[in-house]
Amino acid sequence: MNSDYGLSIWGNSNFVIEAGKVCLNTDFRPPIIDIVKEIRDDGIRGPILLRFPHLIKKQIVEIYKNFERAKKEFDYSGNFNAVYPLKVNQYPGFVKNLVQIGKPFGYGLEAGSKAELLLAMAYNNFGAPITVNGFKDKELINIGFIASEMGHDITLTIEGLTELECIIETAKERFDAKPNIGLRIRLHSSGSGIWAKSGGINSKFGLTATELIEAINLLKEANLLDQFTMIHFHIGSQINEIHPLKKALTEAGHIYAELRKMGANNLKAINLGGGLAVEYSQVKENTVRNYTLREYANDVVFLLKTIAESKNVAEPDIFIESGRYVAANHAVLVAPVLELFSQEYAEEKLVLGKENPPLITELYDLYKSIKPTNALEYLHDAVAHMDSVLTLFDLGYVNLIDRSNGEILVHLIMKKAVAMLGNKQNYTDLLKIQDEVQERYLVNFSLFQSLPDFWGLKQHFPIMPLEKLDERPTRSASLWDITCDSDGEIGFHPKKNPLFLHDVDVEKEEYFLGFFLVGAYQEVLGMSHNLFTHPTEATVTLKDDGGFDISDVLESQSVIDILEDMDYDVHEIQNTLNERVEKSTILDDKQKKHILGELYLFLNDNGYLKSE
Amino acid sequence: MNSDYGLSIWGNSNFVIEAGKVCLNTDFRPPIIDIVKEIRDDGIRGPILLRFPHLIKKQIVEIYKNFERAKKEFDYSGNFNAVYPLKVNQYPGFVKNLVQIGKPFGYGLEAGSKAELLLAMAYNNFGAPITVNGFKDKELINIGFIASEMGHDITLTIEGLTELECIIETAKERFDAKPNIGLRIRLHSSGSGIWAKSGGINSKFGLTATELIEAINLLKEANLLDQFTMIHFHIGSQINEIHPLKKALTEAGHIYAELRKMGANNLKAINLGGGLAVEYSQVKENTVRNYTLREYANDVVFLLKTIAESKNVAEPDIFIESGRYVAANHAVLVAPVLELFSQEYAEEKLVLGKENPPLITELYDLYKSIKPTNALEYLHDAVAHMDSVLTLFDLGYVNLIDRSNGEILVHLIMKKAVAMLGNKQNYTDLLKIQDEVQERYLVNFSLFQSLPDFWGLKQHFPIMPLEKLDERPTRSASLWDITCDSDGEIGFHPKKNPLFLHDVDVEKEEYFLGFFLVGAYQEVLGMSHNLFTHPTEATVTLKDDGGFDISDVLESQSVIDILEDMDYDVHEIQNTLNERVEKSTILDDKQKKHILGELYLFLNDNGYLKSE
Repeated sequence: MNSDYGLSIWGNSNFVIEAGKVCLNTDFRPPIIDIVKEIRDDGIRGPILLRFPHLIKKQIVEIYKNFERAKKEFDYSGNFNAVYPLKVNQYPGFVKNLVQIGKPFGYGLEAGSKAELLLAMAYNNFGAPITVNGFKDKELINIGFIASEMGHDITLTIEGLTELECIIETAKERFDAKPNIGLRIRLHSSGSGIWAKSGGINSKFGLTATELIEAINLLKEANLLDQFTMIHFHIGSQINEIHPLKKALTEAGHIYAELRKMGANNLKAINLGGGLAVEYSQVKENTVRNYTLREYANDVVFLLKTIAESKNVAEPDIFIESGRYVAANHAVLVAPVLELFSQEYAEEKLVLGKENPPLITELYDLYKSIKPTNALEYLHDAVAHMDSVLTLFDLGYVNLIDRSNGEILVHLIMKKAVAMLGNKQNYTDLLKIQDEVQERYLVNFSLFQSLPDFWGLKQHFPIMPLEKLDERPTRSASLWDITCDSDGEIGFHPKKNPLFLHDVDVEKEEYFLGFFLVGAYQEVLGMSHNLFTHPTEATVTLKDDGGFDISDVLESQSVIDILEDMDYDVHEIQNTLNERVEKSTILDDKQKKHILGELYLFLNDNGYLKSE
Repeated sequence: MNSDYGLSIWGNSNFVIEAGKVCLNTDFRPPIIDIVKEIRDDGIRGPILLRFPHLIKKQIVEIYKNFERAKKEFDYSGNFNAVYPLKVNQYPGFVKNLVQIGKPFGYGLEAGSKAELLLAMAYNNFGAPITVNGFKDKELINIGFIASEMGHDITLTIEGLTELECIIETAKERFDAKPNIGLRIRLHSSGSGIWAKSGGINSKFGLTATELIEAINLLKEANLLDQFTMIHFHIGSQINEIHPLKKALTEAGHIYAELRKMGANNLKAINLGGGLAVEYSQVKENTVRNYTLREYANDVVFLLKTIAESKNVAEPDIFIESGRYVAANHAVLVAPVLELFSQEYAEEKLVLGKENPPLITELYDLYKSIKPTNALEYLHDAVAHMDSVLTLFDLGYVNLIDRSNGEILVHLIMKKAVAMLGNKQNYTDLLKIQDEVQERYLVNFSLFQSLPDFWGLKQHFPIMPLEKLDERPTRSASLWDITCDSDGEIGFHPKKNPLFLHDVDVEKEEYFLGFFLVGAYQEVLGMSHNLFTHPTEATVTLKDDGGFDISDVLESQSVIDILEDMDYDVHEIQNTLNERVEKSTILDDKQKKHILGELYLFLNDNGYLKSE
């Protein structure tokens, strides 16, 4: 990894390093650490999720700008529309900003469930499109009709014929206004990338040719063919390369033309779904995206134009439903480092006897005679010796103090080796010993709650310290979270994907890590392992004079709220705890009163660790 | 898979098949489907999580019985204790039953966070042990002291020296009662299984030899050494084989003896953590556990006895913290099948022209002349032809109707092949074509919410239909959930790990799937993807007369509650929706009133699909 933690790869020009700090790349470049400190000045501890509305705006503007440019370049007559899929992030701190920012563009919302649709109906800008994907029952379809009766421009995308039959039935029962109908088409060309299975003939979604024809027939019979305005497909989230999209567009273009040929005269739009990728990699060798937004927009517009010409149909309106691309950027999780594992091993802790086991004596000699030219070799010897010491312990040949001396000596040898090899001419040697000297950093956050895609999909997120970026980090790191779960660790492969951090003494100085690009999916997929819930969040807006405003600070849930959400009777809990204190035979009345007060505070405090 | 869906492998004798239905294996053998229907009679739809307290009791009894037996067999003088780790399932419907059932055994609770500890302090049976693992700050330590001041028998297990320093400081500030102190030891012998990294010298948890010695010194200085009563280790969840546990016990036994030698006179207990495995496999070849509870108990008791003798120390008390073993059994998720993919392809949908592309004519000939002896070959030919039809479509050589005819013919050929090969003598041939004829079943549940370990760890859970078990299932199945996510699919490898289901017409008959062994971790790790939240749950207790009681029915959250939990201002949402209806220019007053009523109902209804 470069010394900028790959910022030039994943950073999207959103951040810059100045005076050793990560700063927002805006006119006045405020350091993120300053924002964090201001929030912590109010007594807030634990992980903090920062939302930056200016980064939402940036993405939305980019999307519309690029498609407008491409339309002009290719003299394309169809309209361009975009909707934001709520499933990517339904939190109010994000959605309400997004809707406000999207207003001048007519940026709409996509919903995939009843709850999301009702949310869209309340917050979508009037006149901006709403699309509804996912499986639908009668109730959801009725809600869709209500949206159109309210005046929303809504399209219900059909995933199966049962849904269409239900729509037809509902149309008979309700009032005049009717939603538009979209048909999700099942393509046999499939996507690339780890989410690729949403495309393809065996995918979860979409109508086959047979079902499309049946759908047209059903619509004709019901006199609803005029409501059919859109076909939809989605070849997968986080599309790595543009090629499969081109194949899919060609196939979709043929289907579009064929359906119009069958009398679908109001069919005017092709909805490409989402898939615009975000670059999460911190290492050049691991980048995941081989195209730019400019290229994406050009390809889409150009291909649709070509197909329309060859099939002799009007150029279709274009809809896209990119969510990750819009949301990922906007949020940064900041979490304090609580502890470094190896700090316990100082020379003064050695308890060498007059006689020591030969291996310990050898380790001591290695420690005393290590120098830059032999550091690599001695370190490897030391690790091998320690393995032998552990085996001898299990067999009862050495005691706990010998084992401890071995541990201390190996750590001291590691520290010396790192110091000796940390300067410029030996730095490549340092890289060679990363396996042995990896340091574990305990971080005050829950991986399960805040980076679920790391747990489930091994999705990498960019991570870097917020400060000290003008000092060379010397420790190859792995990160632990505070859950009781051994899966709560982000390991870094010391060679393929290393993370170097600073050798700080957290008793003496604070050290914060930033986890970037966490604005898409990570919040709603967050798991409450060990009852750690959504972190404290805050919205940061930039002021014209160079300062920033911190608003909508929402502290992480209190213990009592967490338990209430799980449907505990919280009065029962409070009463039982109080009774148990009252009944205690080892406390006097004053002590009891004190403890009852404490309990009240602890129950109403947030559940993360407060030490940092 | 066997025709019993592997019940004899994973079922733990909890269920039997009678008259084609899965029944509880109790005196009166009630079918699960009867329980489900009774709950649905009250209008509840969507997925339902059934809790069976008698299965909690069974596991607890088994654990105590086996350890008591082993103690007797080996004449072991130490005590046996068990605690339940709350992180495995913190839901009140489970925890409150567990605590009540555990009372006669003195079964305790383990907590890994503040919220869990406060829960334990309220619900733990007085006198039963509480243990606290995981990282601790000053606040959590204070709560631990309050527990001991209340009279709880609590042990704080130290994960690092900073915590110990904090305990020492807290002891000076507070009252007389003090919690016991445990030290988590870092073993170099490691576990097996996919969670193995919690053991081992590089694991996330535990004190090294150096830190143990430092801890003893700190405790001595602070005059708190008498509070040190337990060492703790945990080699990993879901231990596949017993061998690594034996290695770990030997190492831990040495450390135990060494610490007592250093003056830790009140150190009396070894806590083995959890790890007792659950057999999730439905296929004999994939079983994951190579030992029984009896063997586990025998090995632990025998080994600790041997070590105590060889080291000349008293036989330690034994603590275990098995959670998965206690909780997994108790819950069954039942979800209705909403749709089968291939039901659209009937012969009457063919729209053959006078002239058809040669490939379509060939497909038609295959369909007409297929018979048992050539079924395998013809099916393979048909699939190859269909590939060619799709390619021709993309190139504009065949139209949508041709493509549809191809789809229908291939599906008809599949259906014929399955029917021809479904009888006894050709059944092995049927198994050979599973790749091609796999049927997709749409199921009314969210995989992300209800089986997160499938998403994250590819953990298999036993799945079977609740009825029709006296009919041979002929369709190799894959399961789709109702989220908008293409990851929401449980694929079954047609050869290694097949799931056969019945070819039902869900328009005509209901078809329910049971997902078994979902009582551990799946609830609290549940993700709210698309805002689908915890399913409806119910507790089922058996009556002496053969009936059952359904209690604590807790319907899945309403839309408005889901949004409130995300910190939306739900009044704002309701008001905005109402205003938008009121302002609509296309509705008259009567219609508006009607719609406002509907909106109120939809907002207060649960968010799953209601069609089934």
